Amino acid sequence: MQQAVDEYISQFKAGYFPPLSQLARLTEEVGELAREINHNYGDKQKKHDELPGSVQEELGDVMIVLMIMANSLDIDLTETFEQNMAKFNQRDHYRFERKDGKTHD
Amino acid sequence: MQQAVDEYISQFKAGYFPPLSQLARLTEEVGELAREINHNYGDKQKKHDELPGSVQEELGDVMIVLMIMANSLDIDLTETFEQNMAKFNQRDHYRFERKDGKTHD
Amino acid sequence: MQQAVDEYISQFKAGYFPPLSQLARLTEEVGELAREINHNYGDKQKKHDELPGSVQEELGDVMIVLMIMANSLDIDLTETFEQNMAKFNQRDHYRFERKDGKTHD
Amino acid sequence: MQQAVDEYISQFKAGYFPPLSQLARLTEEVGELAREINHNYGDKQKKHDELPGSVQEELGDVMIVLMIMANSLDIDLTETFEQNMAKFNQRDHYRFERKDGKTHD
Repeated sequence: MQQAVDEYISQFKAGYFPPLSQLARLTEEVGELAREINHNYGDKQKKHDELPGSVQEELGDVMIVLMIMANSLDIDLTETFEQNMAKFNQRDHYRFERKDGKTHD
Repeated sequence: MQQAVDEYISQFKAGYFPPLSQLARLTEEVGELAREINHNYGDKQKKHDELPGSVQEELGDVMIVLMIMANSLDIDLTETFEQNMAKFNQRDHYRFERKDGKTHD
Repeated sequence: MQQAVDEYISQFKAGYFPPLSQLARLTEEVGELAREINHNYGDKQKKHDELPGSVQEELGDVMIVLMIMANSLDIDLTETFEQNMAKFNQRDHYRFERKDGKTHD
Repeated sequence: MQQAVDEYISQFKAGYFPPLSQLARLTEEVGELAREINHNYGDKQKKHDELPGSVQEELGDVMIVLMIMANSLDIDLTETFEQNMAKFNQRDHYRFERKDGKTHD
């Protein structure tokens, strides 16, 4: 996926934005996701003339902007995923009540 | 200001949203502010058919949504402001390089 | 309030951050508010060794960072508040079901 | 990746949080990413006693929380990625100045 994103960005002269501008881009997309989630699962009703949105599309946009940020910072998300999941599995093994009832090793 | 916000909200049957829905509302508005700041001070250019936005207006919307949240949680923002500024003035007194050159009391 | 914030910032050589860095600062504080709201009103429980937080304090931090941003961009929040509230009162007068039952002028 | 995330979550009785609580979780993680980006690429210096953070780790946490949200809403991120990239490639083909100089089909 990161490769496809890089091919998309590489078409354009502007290339990758600097990190703070990318962060603003991510904040913008998370805001759009928030609006759709609030419309679909929260208390904020859509305006009568507002186009139907899509949580799936907004969630996808957040992910792609995240990949653009990772690409620009030379971060391999697959490698990062494995490291972070190892962290969660180790650090948070007893963080929440477990189905198997265990509370420690 | 919080009083004026309360009068606005009290016109409507829905009244104040629950906290998580208000947080989603705040995230949405911060996203809109992010877009305007990126357009005005970052690398993201507006689309040629995109209406001119306003950092001032978006910043104002974030503040009003913050006040709606404070109202709904019975939080006095003036009192909170004084407490937090006292915290900043005390905790961060030497946090950044000072013009007066002092580094400790 | 904006005056008191300006006095606080003016102590330091760094002064006001540029807009994108301020936006990152605001995003950080909204994240901390989100954590507290999720702990107090959502499904995410605090870790057993996590210090009790305060929605009021985090909400106050978001407001102060917003004021720092407004100061740095020469935006008067009182004036902005009045303009935005006029917008809400006019544009959204019939946005939500009204207690007085009215649906138009 | 979504499968591995599901296996992680399925260990716990709490299972997936409702959408608004997940959104708050995402907002929290984006805030932590914002702090690290501001420390590494912005104007906000780390406190002298603050532990070194990692943009890579925070970016990974945002991605995993995004996957948890997708899982909980039955959204296939691979399918979503393809749909959204098709949208970007089609809608934004001439959005930014192109290296090949083309401005229309």
